[in-house]
Amino acid sequence: MSILEKFSRIKLLAFDLDGVLTDGKLLIMPDGEWIRQMDIKDGYALQHAVKSGLHIAVITGSSSAAVGKRLQKLGIQDYFENTSSKSTVLTSLSQKLNLQPEEVMFMGDDIPDLDAYKVAGCKVCPADAVQEVLAAADYISPLKGGHGCVRDVIEKVMKTRDLWLNTTNTQSI
Amino acid sequence: MSILEKFSRIKLLAFDLDGVLTDGKLLIMPDGEWIRQMDIKDGYALQHAVKSGLHIAVITGSSSAAVGKRLQKLGIQDYFENTSSKSTVLTSLSQKLNLQPEEVMFMGDDIPDLDAYKVAGCKVCPADAVQEVLAAADYISPLKGGHGCVRDVIEKVMKTRDLWLNTTNTQSI
Amino acid sequence: MSILEKFSRIKLLAFDLDGVLTDGKLLIMPDGEWIRQMDIKDGYALQHAVKSGLHIAVITGSSSAAVGKRLQKLGIQDYFENTSSKSTVLTSLSQKLNLQPEEVMFMGDDIPDLDAYKVAGCKVCPADAVQEVLAAADYISPLKGGHGCVRDVIEKVMKTRDLWLNTTNTQSI
Amino acid sequence: MSILEKFSRIKLLAFDLDGVLTDGKLLIMPDGEWIRQMDIKDGYALQHAVKSGLHIAVITGSSSAAVGKRLQKLGIQDYFENTSSKSTVLTSLSQKLNLQPEEVMFMGDDIPDLDAYKVAGCKVCPADAVQEVLAAADYISPLKGGHGCVRDVIEKVMKTRDLWLNTTNTQSI
Repeated sequence: MSILEKFSRIKLLAFDLDGVLTDGKLLIMPDGEWIRQMDIKDGYALQHAVKSGLHIAVITGSSSAAVGKRLQKLGIQDYFENTSSKSTVLTSLSQKLNLQPEEVMFMGDDIPDLDAYKVAGCKVCPADAVQEVLAAADYISPLKGGHGCVRDVIEKVMKTRDLWLNTTNTQSI
Repeated sequence: MSILEKFSRIKLLAFDLDGVLTDGKLLIMPDGEWIRQMDIKDGYALQHAVKSGLHIAVITGSSSAAVGKRLQKLGIQDYFENTSSKSTVLTSLSQKLNLQPEEVMFMGDDIPDLDAYKVAGCKVCPADAVQEVLAAADYISPLKGGHGCVRDVIEKVMKTRDLWLNTTNTQSI
Repeated sequence: MSILEKFSRIKLLAFDLDGVLTDGKLLIMPDGEWIRQMDIKDGYALQHAVKSGLHIAVITGSSSAAVGKRLQKLGIQDYFENTSSKSTVLTSLSQKLNLQPEEVMFMGDDIPDLDAYKVAGCKVCPADAVQEVLAAADYISPLKGGHGCVRDVIEKVMKTRDLWLNTTNTQSI
Repeated sequence: MSILEKFSRIKLLAFDLDGVLTDGKLLIMPDGEWIRQMDIKDGYALQHAVKSGLHIAVITGSSSAAVGKRLQKLGIQDYFENTSSKSTVLTSLSQKLNLQPEEVMFMGDDIPDLDAYKVAGCKVCPADAVQEVLAAADYISPLKGGHGCVRDVIEKVMKTRDLWLNTTNTQSI
């Protein structure tokens, strides 16, 4: 099956947080709290996908209430923090949504994401994923984590069903 | 009409915020507030343009009081936040200033900016705009959002009427 | 002795902070406090090394309680701040751990790190170290400070004894 | 006179702030305050120069108490903020220190710095200075603002009199 055929079946796109929705950097504030960097063009695509009826989820081993707040603003409810097994969460969510593996995409960038790859029908990663992930991916985005890789796969999935330029009143927020 | 001829007629330069005046990144603070990154060389050009009598406006679908404060310090009053239709705002501002479409430039980087392109006589974008915007622009700056694209177009417009090196006491602030 | 042979003997990996675990930038906040940027992929490797029984230490001439908190979360106790002589600290730690020089690696990027190089059997540095350090290093990582150079050497050391893909339940945190 | 001959006479090195000691970006915090990014390798060189008896000054049209605090920690007292005429400040400081123009270097990156160039015997700039400054400089550092251009010129000046590797107990702080 070609990658575009794979993309054409996707109904749930699940993303790792650090290194995928962010550039993989943590800004360490004086009080020990962290700042993460996200991309506004990714944000537009996430909103647009949700409004168009795709399922979006974010699954991370870390945790951040501030990221949850940002995701909520973009219309994303399925945010899983402090995850020790990403495959368990992804399987459970797929069952809840009544989806087959080939309808599920997972984008990750590091070794803990290989666990989610076991249960996702379509395995994708940013250009700067670690070598173990690059080797296991069905599709490697030309774009890096936090620099548009999320939009890249959303756009490609949506274009397989002519949803991308069917613009609603989505704004960059 | 050549691009320099287009530039020579511009009296209002309107800019999108994220991805144009910024690098399109949002730093997510622990409390959910955001930090944006702006360029001080763009700031010099914006100040210099305002002091030289050009009209400058910033139109964004997002909102940030902190950005408004920065713009005010640079002498920019026309800051439109939470905009759902950029074309409406730009048309209304053009009428208020009694300007024709060919006297209006708009710089944007993402799909929501295509709406403003409909009413601006001169459509410009940063080097890292999305492909839909790159395809629609009259001029693509060699510089990226938040990295000098704003100064690039201000400088080029001002040079068409020998205003650029007519330095006042503008400082980088 | 080849560099891989050198790596195969390492039991303690000691790192400078700024320019090695960070990108060497300081974000100066309005109150004069600093923000540093660390890499989450380095964090995964540090955790994984500690869990696998390697000794990890961080030795810096500067100081940051926030960095200490981050390191503690990754399982690192040996954090030495305000160090005027890195060689003294490294020698003392090696003796406490009963290690020979050839079992000790030090990664630094600037002139004050040359002092630690005197007592470390294996001297390594990021790709963007200063020329004096580049010239003195046994191994120059292809990766820059704060951008994976720490993971690069941890991974290479762990692979010499087949520990790298022996994954535990380490998550990116 | 060759550039190295010029460097060999310098006793005062004066630097612009934004785009020279920083990367020219302003991080706009939610309360409207700004964060600037400085380089720790530049910091080492600044400290080392001061300890070796060179005069260092920072002259900016902007203002930041936090930057002043950082400079003080590095041993720099001559910090001039809110400067409308950099040439006036530089002339006055040169007279106070009893220096001739050929003993004074100024590093700037933007149009307001051309004013200081009028009175400095040695005019230098970062690799990413604006074209008007690049054209007027005696020496263009291969390094960018906030990414080592300051260290580059300090190192070159100190090497003309064998001070560079005469290391004291300077630490990266």
